[in-house]
Amino acid sequence: MYKIDLPSEEVPKKWYNINPDLPVEMPMPQNSENESQLENLPKVFSQGVLDQEFSMDRYIKIPKEVREIYMRIGRPTPLYRAKGLEEKLSTPAKIYYKREDTSPTGSHKLNSAIAQAYYAKKEGVELLTTETGAGQWGTALSLACSMMDMDCRIYMVRVSYDQKPFRKSIMEIYDGEVHASPSKSTEYGRKILEKDPDTPGSLGIAISEAMEDALKDEKTKYSLGSVLNHVMLHQTVIGQELKKQLEIAEEEPDVFIGCVGGGSNFAGSAYPLIKDKLDGKSDCQFIGVEPSSCPTLTKGEYKYDFGDTNGFTPLLKMFTLGHDFIAPSVHAGGLRYHGMSPQISLLVNEGIIEPRSASQKEIFESGTLFAKSEGVVPAPETNHALKVAIDEAKKCKETGEEKTIVVNFSGHGLLDLKGYAGYLENNLE
Amino acid sequence: MYKIDLPSEEVPKKWYNINPDLPVEMPMPQNSENESQLENLPKVFSQGVLDQEFSMDRYIKIPKEVREIYMRIGRPTPLYRAKGLEEKLSTPAKIYYKREDTSPTGSHKLNSAIAQAYYAKKEGVELLTTETGAGQWGTALSLACSMMDMDCRIYMVRVSYDQKPFRKSIMEIYDGEVHASPSKSTEYGRKILEKDPDTPGSLGIAISEAMEDALKDEKTKYSLGSVLNHVMLHQTVIGQELKKQLEIAEEEPDVFIGCVGGGSNFAGSAYPLIKDKLDGKSDCQFIGVEPSSCPTLTKGEYKYDFGDTNGFTPLLKMFTLGHDFIAPSVHAGGLRYHGMSPQISLLVNEGIIEPRSASQKEIFESGTLFAKSEGVVPAPETNHALKVAIDEAKKCKETGEEKTIVVNFSGHGLLDLKGYAGYLENNLE
Repeated sequence: MYKIDLPSEEVPKKWYNINPDLPVEMPMPQNSENESQLENLPKVFSQGVLDQEFSMDRYIKIPKEVREIYMRIGRPTPLYRAKGLEEKLSTPAKIYYKREDTSPTGSHKLNSAIAQAYYAKKEGVELLTTETGAGQWGTALSLACSMMDMDCRIYMVRVSYDQKPFRKSIMEIYDGEVHASPSKSTEYGRKILEKDPDTPGSLGIAISEAMEDALKDEKTKYSLGSVLNHVMLHQTVIGQELKKQLEIAEEEPDVFIGCVGGGSNFAGSAYPLIKDKLDGKSDCQFIGVEPSSCPTLTKGEYKYDFGDTNGFTPLLKMFTLGHDFIAPSVHAGGLRYHGMSPQISLLVNEGIIEPRSASQKEIFESGTLFAKSEGVVPAPETNHALKVAIDEAKKCKETGEEKTIVVNFSGHGLLDLKGYAGYLENNLE
Repeated sequence: MYKIDLPSEEVPKKWYNINPDLPVEMPMPQNSENESQLENLPKVFSQGVLDQEFSMDRYIKIPKEVREIYMRIGRPTPLYRAKGLEEKLSTPAKIYYKREDTSPTGSHKLNSAIAQAYYAKKEGVELLTTETGAGQWGTALSLACSMMDMDCRIYMVRVSYDQKPFRKSIMEIYDGEVHASPSKSTEYGRKILEKDPDTPGSLGIAISEAMEDALKDEKTKYSLGSVLNHVMLHQTVIGQELKKQLEIAEEEPDVFIGCVGGGSNFAGSAYPLIKDKLDGKSDCQFIGVEPSSCPTLTKGEYKYDFGDTNGFTPLLKMFTLGHDFIAPSVHAGGLRYHGMSPQISLLVNEGIIEPRSASQKEIFESGTLFAKSEGVVPAPETNHALKVAIDEAKKCKETGEEKTIVVNFSGHGLLDLKGYAGYLENNLE
């Protein structure tokens, strides 16, 4: 069996909320000294997602309209067996990958974009603003807004904007309005540009710009592509499908691997499996992989920090490199974030998820090997997960263990070929 | 039902050969005056595909190894209902699209590339040479050769090479060796460059260069991505799957639409349906759509002509604009070919397939509308088919007819965003 499909009807009917199942209580967001960011939340976010953010219900119904669109964009996504890669590695391990790249926008991001656009539309919002790093989230939100007949404005981290000229085109095909961030359109953007006109930008800065727009206009809301609980929640359609597909393949995963930037692809694919572990039904190992140049989980601190650079957001308890951290211009733009999902941070702190890091050269090496063996060219972000999957499969070759390794294949790299070109020309930092 | 999947086991076991079912006999290839190109064929092509080229067997077994790889790369591909597009057009028509873009290389081309690489490998060939226009075929053959552990050299039409810098990167990820054509590596390339150093190149020239390599070395064979009977044959996995999927959807197609360059995606998806028409079991209408700037079927002549520019190939009876025709630099590089599959040409001449043409601006307009409604960004080539599908769906709105329209969605446009950018900036010729 190379490909395990599920029919449209098998799109989950509920999202899985891990909050009530966490081993310790989630530390709540807080105001910073003399500021009241918590009061800003309803100005910035739609009520629909705010309700979800703090919900303690284990399952939350997916609105019929959202589920319909999930079907239209091709959910459930297929699960593949990486036979070609296994053969190339001569490993006794079995490697499976859940193909979120098959989404029309090329990554898992659409799962939350559709839900967020739906709730905003329902509440009369006319414009959604957002940030994007690699471009995957901005692309997804542009399409979601287009499908919901709303406007979309995207602040794209400058370095990604320059590295990926065609990301702008694809967002514009979907009627998105794209600005390189920091931009001159916001007060905060202008302030940053004055200090450092050549800054590569950061997700934190882009978030501040997008939030500033939402704070200024009632019909404008902000939409975040990762980090927060409701985003993790929306992504759990991945893991619920994955569980069914592994059952069909008659497999119990020994190792689950995903890349981590803000945490959403990891959370969405892993949480339904982590639930089994928390329930004592599985002893699967969970590994989150980040770039060694932006080592939030492996070198950051677990403490309260802002989600953005300017301090518009409340303080969140999470692993962080500091909210003014600006990561070097690596090609995995989707993983260049100073913080991390508070839920994922908690699970790492509790030892449920093991963090690892990988260098830019290593990850492109793994991605190229994967592409040659399986065909699909992975996103640089996804390559982080593949790097560790290959490491684990090689270990199995040494020990003879027939482990079942499952990777969340978060996206394809067809709009990130500049990074591959640099790798092939031996021209990467 | 939005998506109709078939399990891996449903990959067809045989290719369908239309030769014995054609309404009139296929005119055989011929030598030109004082030349003996027919004798060159065994030097240029592997015996496996030559046997297929002239076979009169209605079904030809797909080798087990090839069928395995078809499964590994995700065949059968899904069939989608274009509900979003239907709604946007307020049409009573039902529109289905067969998603060949879900192949790891992004188009149908891998279906023949795998088969051709397989036969060559079996016969001890070490290097396959080929041409590529849009880059889809070169990408597919690079991956197929990589999977078969062979070398691959690609002559890429200069204008596409310049328009699509990242096509080169993806071929190199798969270990392909890419030259802009005309190149300085061949005698014929040098000859053309001397006469016209600024030529945009053409598929005909690139074919001549790739054939020259094969004629010079015993361990080198040439591989063609379209036009010839064996390529059409390999692509019939598409149409066989499509027939089953339409049965599952309980649909009988009224109109089938595909784009045509050399003819392979059209043939592969349509032949199994055309068989029903020839057998009197269906009265489906078949429409092939080409660029108005390269109007082979709509303005060419049905006569014997060379398949390449230099005259290495035998004379083929086909619609042609003349073998020295150089099409303008439109973005649908895959449809810039002076000739046409002899089988498709015969079927057009017999009135079984209706040819139409569309302008560059029209097709990007259709592609953008499709992307906004369905999500997937189509290849510029595929946009030709979508243009006519949208025309037909609009007609249904006027007449109230609930026609079933089926499109072969030959590939995605993620590596062709430059054309979309030009369209969005109102900057297309």
